[in-house]
Amino acid sequence: MANMNDIKLVSGLSKKATVIQVGLLKIGLDFVVIAGPCSIENEGQTVEIARAVKAAGANMLRGGAFKPRTSPYAFQGLGLKGLKILAKAGKETGLPVVSEVLDTRDVSWMGEYVDILQIGTRNMQNFPLLKEVGKTQKPVLLKRGMHSTLLEWLSSAEYILNAGNANVILCERGIRTFETYTRNTLDLSAVPAIKELSHLPIIVDPAHGTGRISLISAMSLAAVAAGADGIIVEVHNNPQAALSDSDQTLTPEQFSVVARKVLSLRSFMEKLN
Amino acid sequence: MANMNDIKLVSGLSKKATVIQVGLLKIGLDFVVIAGPCSIENEGQTVEIARAVKAAGANMLRGGAFKPRTSPYAFQGLGLKGLKILAKAGKETGLPVVSEVLDTRDVSWMGEYVDILQIGTRNMQNFPLLKEVGKTQKPVLLKRGMHSTLLEWLSSAEYILNAGNANVILCERGIRTFETYTRNTLDLSAVPAIKELSHLPIIVDPAHGTGRISLISAMSLAAVAAGADGIIVEVHNNPQAALSDSDQTLTPEQFSVVARKVLSLRSFMEKLN
Amino acid sequence: MANMNDIKLVSGLSKKATVIQVGLLKIGLDFVVIAGPCSIENEGQTVEIARAVKAAGANMLRGGAFKPRTSPYAFQGLGLKGLKILAKAGKETGLPVVSEVLDTRDVSWMGEYVDILQIGTRNMQNFPLLKEVGKTQKPVLLKRGMHSTLLEWLSSAEYILNAGNANVILCERGIRTFETYTRNTLDLSAVPAIKELSHLPIIVDPAHGTGRISLISAMSLAAVAAGADGIIVEVHNNPQAALSDSDQTLTPEQFSVVARKVLSLRSFMEKLN
Amino acid sequence: MANMNDIKLVSGLSKKATVIQVGLLKIGLDFVVIAGPCSIENEGQTVEIARAVKAAGANMLRGGAFKPRTSPYAFQGLGLKGLKILAKAGKETGLPVVSEVLDTRDVSWMGEYVDILQIGTRNMQNFPLLKEVGKTQKPVLLKRGMHSTLLEWLSSAEYILNAGNANVILCERGIRTFETYTRNTLDLSAVPAIKELSHLPIIVDPAHGTGRISLISAMSLAAVAAGADGIIVEVHNNPQAALSDSDQTLTPEQFSVVARKVLSLRSFMEKLN
Repeated sequence: MANMNDIKLVSGLSKKATVIQVGLLKIGLDFVVIAGPCSIENEGQTVEIARAVKAAGANMLRGGAFKPRTSPYAFQGLGLKGLKILAKAGKETGLPVVSEVLDTRDVSWMGEYVDILQIGTRNMQNFPLLKEVGKTQKPVLLKRGMHSTLLEWLSSAEYILNAGNANVILCERGIRTFETYTRNTLDLSAVPAIKELSHLPIIVDPAHGTGRISLISAMSLAAVAAGADGIIVEVHNNPQAALSDSDQTLTPEQFSVVARKVLSLRSFMEKLN
Repeated sequence: MANMNDIKLVSGLSKKATVIQVGLLKIGLDFVVIAGPCSIENEGQTVEIARAVKAAGANMLRGGAFKPRTSPYAFQGLGLKGLKILAKAGKETGLPVVSEVLDTRDVSWMGEYVDILQIGTRNMQNFPLLKEVGKTQKPVLLKRGMHSTLLEWLSSAEYILNAGNANVILCERGIRTFETYTRNTLDLSAVPAIKELSHLPIIVDPAHGTGRISLISAMSLAAVAAGADGIIVEVHNNPQAALSDSDQTLTPEQFSVVARKVLSLRSFMEKLN
Repeated sequence: MANMNDIKLVSGLSKKATVIQVGLLKIGLDFVVIAGPCSIENEGQTVEIARAVKAAGANMLRGGAFKPRTSPYAFQGLGLKGLKILAKAGKETGLPVVSEVLDTRDVSWMGEYVDILQIGTRNMQNFPLLKEVGKTQKPVLLKRGMHSTLLEWLSSAEYILNAGNANVILCERGIRTFETYTRNTLDLSAVPAIKELSHLPIIVDPAHGTGRISLISAMSLAAVAAGADGIIVEVHNNPQAALSDSDQTLTPEQFSVVARKVLSLRSFMEKLN
Repeated sequence: MANMNDIKLVSGLSKKATVIQVGLLKIGLDFVVIAGPCSIENEGQTVEIARAVKAAGANMLRGGAFKPRTSPYAFQGLGLKGLKILAKAGKETGLPVVSEVLDTRDVSWMGEYVDILQIGTRNMQNFPLLKEVGKTQKPVLLKRGMHSTLLEWLSSAEYILNAGNANVILCERGIRTFETYTRNTLDLSAVPAIKELSHLPIIVDPAHGTGRISLISAMSLAAVAAGADGIIVEVHNNPQAALSDSDQTLTPEQFSVVARKVLSLRSFMEKLN
């Protein structure tokens, strides 16, 4: 079992909160709103969504090119082609981009296309992958394993810092429980808990955390109130036609309302003492 | 497994949100801040805490007289004597009082001392007890079973409504998961989920939900942002000497800060559209 | 959290294994095979099933008269009428009988009709009920809470012993996890774990533990190999027409095969050194 | 969520049970007893343990060269050097060998040193790794994810078969639950459940499943009774000095007793009808 000695680099005792600069964005200081399609499907769609989310208040673009799917018969992503589209959409809108890396062999070259490498929930304890991203200086968005304790999660972050890369952003995305109404159980207590254990920034994914469009707005607001440094959500111009995760994907119009409320609440929270 | 037919009375389809009047308080409309000791220990302590929490913004007093303890050797509560003290403290401060009922034989007479009967997490599926409180018109605070799905919880509420008592307030208090840093995992997604499934009011217990004083403030604020109708917390004038739950009990000073922030955030949320 | 001091009466350090005599049956020494309908429905059915399970090798009869049902609209059992039928079926076959008690008010009089009082998974931490059965000398079959650790379970047994009744039989019946293929996850490691922690006998319920007829035989055999002192299963002469739990109820023919294999394996295990 | 269409190659409907030949061993037909150190530490130790487990009844040797450790500061294994030692110990004793592969880059060359490639619980949904082992014809021992449902597990096996490798052996090793007495909760119902869902062989790891030496014997026997095709356990000539998992590692003497009972029970089960 992990203990405090296993997280000496990520633990927050007497350290300054980490701020990670990506473009003009100071993650850990500025509130981050990451939005975009679950999977990148084609250039037109991606650029259109990128423009819509930027207009609605997003300051980073997400999009999956390598998709970790339970079934081998599900859409596995466009790969390199998808990353090129994502990079282009990022350039056109001025938004930094984040995408998931699945394989140690892809780490070095993917850095040419993305600003942040995401490590997904299923790879939180893929130790060769953690070591590999640790060898770069690319910021890493490390999602919590759906089966992982806070200390195990921080130990995984420690692998990255220990390998030489201090730019780690944590992302709570729900843990697996017996509840079936929601896809996972979003553990928002992880936000203040991580804040007392570590100096790393932490954002929240209310879409995978709940799996229900109807719960995303309330849980995004709750994440802000709990002290999160940002949120990451899925937005698609036609969710019902999306190639993955359509049940938890917002339209640009829905996202626009969520983003406005979230940013308004964030301003309020900064003044609440 | 429970389904929508099992919750026809509590389900919210096309019904008005339930408002339950307790004294001057309209639960479901007014924001409820319930505070007080985990266990009632003596009159002096209880009245002192009651005055402190009222001054700090609480509008209801809690206190345990019958304590459900894992061990038979732990303090089991003062019983009737405790209820008399609680009633007196409520009278002196003008605060309505809530206390847990454990036994079907206690339901009818306990109503003389308390304004709300609480059913705890371990009794959420104590069906004779649900039927017994259902025969009264006393408001019931029904905590979620630590092992219960949302539909099972609502089915337990349905027992009470079906027996004739429509005055049910739900309380999310954390579910049991693999995480060990927190005592339970507070499932705040239950708040918007219950709001879309049912017309009943729902409050949040961030103390049992986390088991850590340091997380209570953030999770209380998150509960408000998620749309909760109130919070319930433990306050003691000397937490380290409390006969139960000292790790999650606030001092009056700490509570005062939490209550002020919570009420301020609630006002903000009411205007956020 | 429960610890070893909370289970001083039930802990097994240097104590002889408890043997509980019920009729001619020495529970903890003889292997117990408890079978019968989930719910008692009428006299004809109950007597017929009782004869069938006795012929197939059962040495105790089970049958529910007070049924703890998730929904208030599900069949709640025949109550006293059911207990009278059960007692009659027991008398006609010479089988001792066991039935679940839900309410503290029923403990004393139910003892006239049954040989063993069962406390179900939802009442494992119904402390007034534990204290009430503890005041009698009736053997108690204490099922594990679906959300309960081994130490919490033993602490509940300690309530009964501490109140004066040493005749407690534990029953593992599955815990709640994320798995959905089975109704619960049968934790067979509880059997050797309880044997090293306590001197109390422990039996296994493979029907509720899995919720699938197709898994009952294998899990009954596994229970025997793990060292269980008995099994409890549901048998109905027409499972598809049973008023509860038809998905996990054996026909007398299926039960006959299971019982034969189980008893044969038990004989083998007694000689395996 | 995975469904039956996602497991068309591994599902067992009307297919013959898969038998995988490794040396003289027919996995799925012969009972497999895999034993050896958690981590390979040096040649002398490995050969000594290999001889001891062979003498005690093991028919395959295990040993970790790449260790997936929660902490970056824990012993990470000897890597290639360890594999060479393992291969040598296998050769000297005539035992086939199995070791875990963590990285897609290691799959092709590791096949020169081991007879079976193990994919551990943390990599059950490492899809690039599944695809990579699927391109070989090496038998794969696929452990269940500690957070994975049976259908997700079978979907991961489907990745391997779909990539062209039909030689998959499943291994139940416990799932993560709220219980803390055991390291995981060994889900033995997975054995008969997999047998009804799939034609693939399934073995059981009672050491990781429980994390306690004292429970390994009983759970190994229970696995046999449940119908498992084999067991895998950790054996070390000096468990207290082992570099990993010392709490769940048997001495050769303890293993000898377990193996004898297990093989005796297996013979009995084959005749039980």
